[in-house]
Amino acid sequence: MAETERSHAPNVRWQTFDLDKQRRATAMGQKPAVIWFTGLSGAGKSTIANLVEKSLFARGRHTYLLDGDNLRHGLNRDLGFSEADRVENIRRVAEAARLFVDAGLIVLASFISPYRSDRRMARSLFEDGEFIEVFVDTPLEIAEQRDPKGLYKRARAGLIKDFTGIDSPYEAPEQAEIRLEAGTQEPDVLANQIMRYLCRGQYFEPMS
Amino acid sequence: MAETERSHAPNVRWQTFDLDKQRRATAMGQKPAVIWFTGLSGAGKSTIANLVEKSLFARGRHTYLLDGDNLRHGLNRDLGFSEADRVENIRRVAEAARLFVDAGLIVLASFISPYRSDRRMARSLFEDGEFIEVFVDTPLEIAEQRDPKGLYKRARAGLIKDFTGIDSPYEAPEQAEIRLEAGTQEPDVLANQIMRYLCRGQYFEPMS
Repeated sequence: MAETERSHAPNVRWQTFDLDKQRRATAMGQKPAVIWFTGLSGAGKSTIANLVEKSLFARGRHTYLLDGDNLRHGLNRDLGFSEADRVENIRRVAEAARLFVDAGLIVLASFISPYRSDRRMARSLFEDGEFIEVFVDTPLEIAEQRDPKGLYKRARAGLIKDFTGIDSPYEAPEQAEIRLEAGTQEPDVLANQIMRYLCRGQYFEPMS
Repeated sequence: MAETERSHAPNVRWQTFDLDKQRRATAMGQKPAVIWFTGLSGAGKSTIANLVEKSLFARGRHTYLLDGDNLRHGLNRDLGFSEADRVENIRRVAEAARLFVDAGLIVLASFISPYRSDRRMARSLFEDGEFIEVFVDTPLEIAEQRDPKGLYKRARAGLIKDFTGIDSPYEAPEQAEIRLEAGTQEPDVLANQIMRYLCRGQYFEPMS
């Protein structure tokens, strides 16, 4: 009841003592950040993001995963796939990620995000060290061979237009914080590569 | 290292064992929800929401406060004040709140949100018990007298059009979960009224 007692003190009754990112993050024992996974469809972004999130959860950390599934069916349900809508899609994802970082969480964002300009815009919303770009670097041949959703097959058949890697470019990151050789290495090995980066950067407190 | 060891077991290596709302919320020791404050400009929404958030934080709970300041300057910066933009503003607020609830947090949303249809739309995105509508019921005369931002004065002078309470209606909630007599009672008393509701509804675990 300490809080209630404090707010009964006449001199602070009306004070709006806003919680901020730093206090929330300290209470969570972590440094908030967005881990931004970029790469081709089928590169392994979601699989690896899932493994990282599970590892962080197992360490008692607080996370959230933003991806097409929970965004395109809600916040971004009004957006299609035109040039303007594609840019707006990434803008809203980045703004939502910023809110989550402000709330103190470690956010995992998994989107093809093929254009450098969009990723630069996303990065510009964050402070130094808060935006961790992860290039999930899987050669097109391997991603197309996996084709977990059958999308490459449909794109090759001309049933999907502007498909990244087929008839729309993927602009590989030049200075990503982390590059994962996701065509040859196992997802759990790659997830551990990210966990080591987070640990070195003290994004979470070591297990006690 | 339990997590890493598990993911080395051959039979679960590729399993995408997604965290869900329930697991996140359990780890946070709380029942996620959005506390939706509605009421006139100057009614006291933000002041009370701040006090509730501080009380929850003091109890070790994890929260986030969505309001015009962090939304209109980011996620909703492309929106103006036309009828369509106003509806879209509340839709995105509600969708953002849903993501935060999915992340396990207790979200405080502080928006005039004068129309029943918009608040009904917001409520429809949530499961039973997740949407707590708080009617910050301050008579217009009192809100206008407070006029903390000088907005009523400007609206009366015709400098702001479609101002809620002056030349645009406020549709009072008919079945809000909580009604606060915010014209006569002190903010800390009203914040405690909300804390008692949350405690009774077991939205957070009692202090140990």
